[in-house]
Amino acid sequence: MTRIDDLPLRDELRGKTPYGAPQLDVPVRLNTNENPYPLPDALVRRIAERVSDAARGLNRYPDRDAVELRTALAGYLTQTTGYAVGPRQVWAANGSNEILQQLLQAFGGPGRTALGFDPSYSMHALIARGTGTGWVSGARDEADFTIDEPAAVEFVTAHRPDVLFICSPNNPTGTAVEPDTVLALYDAAQRAAKGRHGALVVVDEAYAEFSHRPSLLPLIEGRPNLVLSRTMSKAFGAAGLRLGYLAADPALVDAVQLVRLPYHLSAVTQATAHAALEFAPTLLGYVQELKSERDRLVRELRAMGLDVTESDANFIQFGSFADPHAFWEKVLEHGVLIRDNGVPGRLRVSVGTPAENDTFLEAARAALKETQAAAPESEERP
Amino acid sequence: MTRIDDLPLRDELRGKTPYGAPQLDVPVRLNTNENPYPLPDALVRRIAERVSDAARGLNRYPDRDAVELRTALAGYLTQTTGYAVGPRQVWAANGSNEILQQLLQAFGGPGRTALGFDPSYSMHALIARGTGTGWVSGARDEADFTIDEPAAVEFVTAHRPDVLFICSPNNPTGTAVEPDTVLALYDAAQRAAKGRHGALVVVDEAYAEFSHRPSLLPLIEGRPNLVLSRTMSKAFGAAGLRLGYLAADPALVDAVQLVRLPYHLSAVTQATAHAALEFAPTLLGYVQELKSERDRLVRELRAMGLDVTESDANFIQFGSFADPHAFWEKVLEHGVLIRDNGVPGRLRVSVGTPAENDTFLEAARAALKETQAAAPESEERP
Repeated sequence: MTRIDDLPLRDELRGKTPYGAPQLDVPVRLNTNENPYPLPDALVRRIAERVSDAARGLNRYPDRDAVELRTALAGYLTQTTGYAVGPRQVWAANGSNEILQQLLQAFGGPGRTALGFDPSYSMHALIARGTGTGWVSGARDEADFTIDEPAAVEFVTAHRPDVLFICSPNNPTGTAVEPDTVLALYDAAQRAAKGRHGALVVVDEAYAEFSHRPSLLPLIEGRPNLVLSRTMSKAFGAAGLRLGYLAADPALVDAVQLVRLPYHLSAVTQATAHAALEFAPTLLGYVQELKSERDRLVRELRAMGLDVTESDANFIQFGSFADPHAFWEKVLEHGVLIRDNGVPGRLRVSVGTPAENDTFLEAARAALKETQAAAPESEERP
Repeated sequence: MTRIDDLPLRDELRGKTPYGAPQLDVPVRLNTNENPYPLPDALVRRIAERVSDAARGLNRYPDRDAVELRTALAGYLTQTTGYAVGPRQVWAANGSNEILQQLLQAFGGPGRTALGFDPSYSMHALIARGTGTGWVSGARDEADFTIDEPAAVEFVTAHRPDVLFICSPNNPTGTAVEPDTVLALYDAAQRAAKGRHGALVVVDEAYAEFSHRPSLLPLIEGRPNLVLSRTMSKAFGAAGLRLGYLAADPALVDAVQLVRLPYHLSAVTQATAHAALEFAPTLLGYVQELKSERDRLVRELRAMGLDVTESDANFIQFGSFADPHAFWEKVLEHGVLIRDNGVPGRLRVSVGTPAENDTFLEAARAALKETQAAAPESEERP
């Protein structure tokens, strides 16, 4: 039998394993920040209608530039942020992962470096690797997981990245980044850049709709090297759709088209996304429910004496545990799958339905008792 | 206004333009090798059913490994080629372009070289560039566009590529490659390879179903470095779906998962592709009609005195013209859009419906008369 290592694989891929959250078949899955609410029936019917229309012309290539969809996405951004963008400022792809990959193909790549502040969305570093871009890992505050502005500016100035990632709200910590910090980092990246055209700054706003604060979208004004990345996976309850998008200066949208695969976005994906955008008000109603549930979970976890990181997302990071994996396993024994992202002492739980959250809270209380009984040293922490 | 060149774009992308066939709104579009037959109504209904099912769970991420779809694709390959493959030998992505991109990310990339025999599918070189892979262009016979085996073996031996592309039937020429030639090139590439694990050989079979000859799939037997790439865009009449796939040793399928973006293939794409596979017998009936029409077009174009390249595809390359663009424009004046792929003296026409083909043949006859009248030197050629 042939093994991977017998193949002429690139050396840096040898010994690696594919990225992806471990999946287990359990009653309550709160491990991948999915939206727990299925799409409403009326939207499912609308998707069927729009996809049927698209299927009738499926023998033809899809709209290569996805103009109708980009127009709808621009309308959504304009309505929800109050900052007006048009279709020439918006680009769409198969998930924000493909958006980030296209950005790194155009602005990163061999001989160039990307920088992010960890812990953050681990795909930033992985997609950098996949596109031959170097990776430099900056640090977040170990207690509250914010980005310390003076230290971060110094770090960017020292490392002179070609691409800078700022994830806000940040996955897996839930932490929002202040607009002033984004601007300070943007300016530092431009000043420090090796090339005379500055550096690209990517603000990953996958969880923006769940934030207590306004979107960072207006920061693109007058900053052609700032790009905002978004997804329909979370707020639109459409992780299965794989629809990511970006907003930036029209020149950046043009630039990305130099590396996009032609006809990258299928006609059925475009049709489904368009249908979901028609239902934005309904879906944003679910977002409101999830935000209240998120705030309830934060309160309840704090009431258990846990150290809970401020969350602007649809998930919560909490701890701290001497042995987070032991706690993770105890919660799993109660039928709830949460996520160990490898952040020392911390775990992450996605916000589910009220019933799922109750089940998780019970499981967490039980797990706390059981792990405290088994490991008395954990009682020493707050 | 910011222009692309003001951005910190990679130097090798500066001055480039996005890939894509020029699109014009004309009555008869025979320029992108699309299947002219819309999907049958029963299949459109089946797609709506399957997509509705998928939409109900769209808040969850799709099956990351697309196991159900890969099983169906494996069944299709087994049934149509007589060579049995299972789901572990098959992988799917957003169009064969993404398949090729994943292969180049895993087996090409910075410091590595890919080689193909031109004229061929220009995305091979473009995706190589997009993944930082070097590109070496070998030549096909200038008269019949076949690959001359001894010369090609010598070329591969001299250039020692890490990835070798063989497109059969070849786009844009329509030329099939003999299995013996593929084997000779495979062996030469393994012997010449710089690394001790050999070189990857990609057989691009996007147009396989239209060929007079059997698929090259059985060649993967015992050759872990041989991968066959396929698409549902052509034979399945589903260019709008963006579903490409590969067949190879299971180890190669594992290797590709090291570079694929997680959850790259949406639930709606998986559902639609699965529905289309259920209708394979009907769709392959259309392929039979297109093959007869292709053969009729070849005969008719030859009867006009044109030099027509043997075609195993759903398109035909013909010439030769002193000024192919002038002929292209004349045909366009008659409402038919064909393709100038930049092959000296040649043009390419996709096979349409019988009525579309008749319109094209009339346009071609008229264009021949008009261009011969205008440019007497073209009378010198056969």
